Amino acid sequence: MTAPSPTAAVLVIGDEILSGRTRDTNSGHIAAFLTEIGIDLREIRVVPDVEDRIVAALDALRAANTYVFTTGGIGPTHDDITADAVATAFGVAIAHHPDAIEILRQHYVTPEELTEARLRMARIPVGATLIDNPVSKAPGFHIGNVFVMAGVPKIMQAMLLNVEKELTGGVPVQSVTVDCPFGEGVIGTALADVAKAHPAVSIGSYPILAARNFSTKLVIRSREPAALTAATAAVEAMLATIARDKAGDSTLTDY
Amino acid sequence: MTAPSPTAAVLVIGDEILSGRTRDTNSGHIAAFLTEIGIDLREIRVVPDVEDRIVAALDALRAANTYVFTTGGIGPTHDDITADAVATAFGVAIAHHPDAIEILRQHYVTPEELTEARLRMARIPVGATLIDNPVSKAPGFHIGNVFVMAGVPKIMQAMLLNVEKELTGGVPVQSVTVDCPFGEGVIGTALADVAKAHPAVSIGSYPILAARNFSTKLVIRSREPAALTAATAAVEAMLATIARDKAGDSTLTDY
Repeated sequence: MTAPSPTAAVLVIGDEILSGRTRDTNSGHIAAFLTEIGIDLREIRVVPDVEDRIVAALDALRAANTYVFTTGGIGPTHDDITADAVATAFGVAIAHHPDAIEILRQHYVTPEELTEARLRMARIPVGATLIDNPVSKAPGFHIGNVFVMAGVPKIMQAMLLNVEKELTGGVPVQSVTVDCPFGEGVIGTALADVAKAHPAVSIGSYPILAARNFSTKLVIRSREPAALTAATAAVEAMLATIARDKAGDSTLTDY
Repeated sequence: MTAPSPTAAVLVIGDEILSGRTRDTNSGHIAAFLTEIGIDLREIRVVPDVEDRIVAALDALRAANTYVFTTGGIGPTHDDITADAVATAFGVAIAHHPDAIEILRQHYVTPEELTEARLRMARIPVGATLIDNPVSKAPGFHIGNVFVMAGVPKIMQAMLLNVEKELTGGVPVQSVTVDCPFGEGVIGTALADVAKAHPAVSIGSYPILAARNFSTKLVIRSREPAALTAATAAVEAMLATIARDKAGDSTLTDY
């Protein structure tokens, strides 16, 4: 048995995702990153640029998980309200952070360049620590178990790398993918038996539709290498049996 | 003023999204579809293949929204538990639906073809109505204000078209996108003034990073055409003023 793993949630903030105008790629990137370092992503939520909604989601997610990662809403415009919402959620004030102002001053040298809008990006909940932004300078921040990052994917990705040292990872989940040439409906019952016989792994079954034919990707996941090996062998044996017994079944590549 | 608009939430069900193995494209597709028919998408959640988590999310989202759309977890394998979770959430039994069995029988003609696993796809919460699946036959279903659809994008998209006739849309939000050649930090303060002066529109500001230069997409949205036209003119006038007053500012394409 392994120790309980740290968990996480991602909170994506932005009307543009909910209108369908912008496709969110940040949550998928964070998901893959967390899987690599052994942190279980347990939930993703997307909420609009509405303070009450951000606060409610933050409170629910930070209470239920080891870490929460937010993306979006920390730029210089009127619709960037994430920092205020985080301050509200934590019950702290928000103020221009001296280090954040200094970072902006080094980049925006004259008072004309360091506009009022850009100075907004130095407004940080009191007690938070900054997350370095090597792309465009204006920092993210970290307060309690919440990491607040930009929405621009390139900036978010750079911030995430800077956050990694502050995270306590777990034992990474290993996975093996077995390509099954048959549809899920052909293998379902036998696969359920394998899953039941191998409780230390989880087996995900994902239909692939190409032209009019279904095949299946079977993803076997576990933190225990021996269990993973045993379950993979059982899945492969099961598929060999089906290939032999069902040869000629015209519905092998139906759903 | 316009009547209050119907609202919606999307619930994406599947470990594969949370592990980062599969990128969710369904929620973005549903988002764009709902925007076109005037339904406000208010939240997207992604939860794992865990019944308690599905039930809790379903209950929260269906209480808060006119409609809930779920994707994933209605196939023939052991990890497909969405139908059971929906039955639990609604407090109803689950049983093989005669019409669903008939649909499957027409496609899977012999008893060998209509496997136990495939028959699982006819298990539908009692009281639900079926959603036609022209791609692979096994239906989705609709109970209360919840529409339960497949996770395979092509099937989900076909089901969504079949669901449309059951939805009461609202006045669609119209949007105008203005390409701003400057970074958000240059326009932020003036933009906030325009936003404040035009309360019948929402103005979203989205930074675009290309090479090392920032520009901004400004998306002006409203259900009121006259308000949209007026706000768009105000945004364009604001940008013309900035272009004139700030010509030569070396930080115009910084963040």
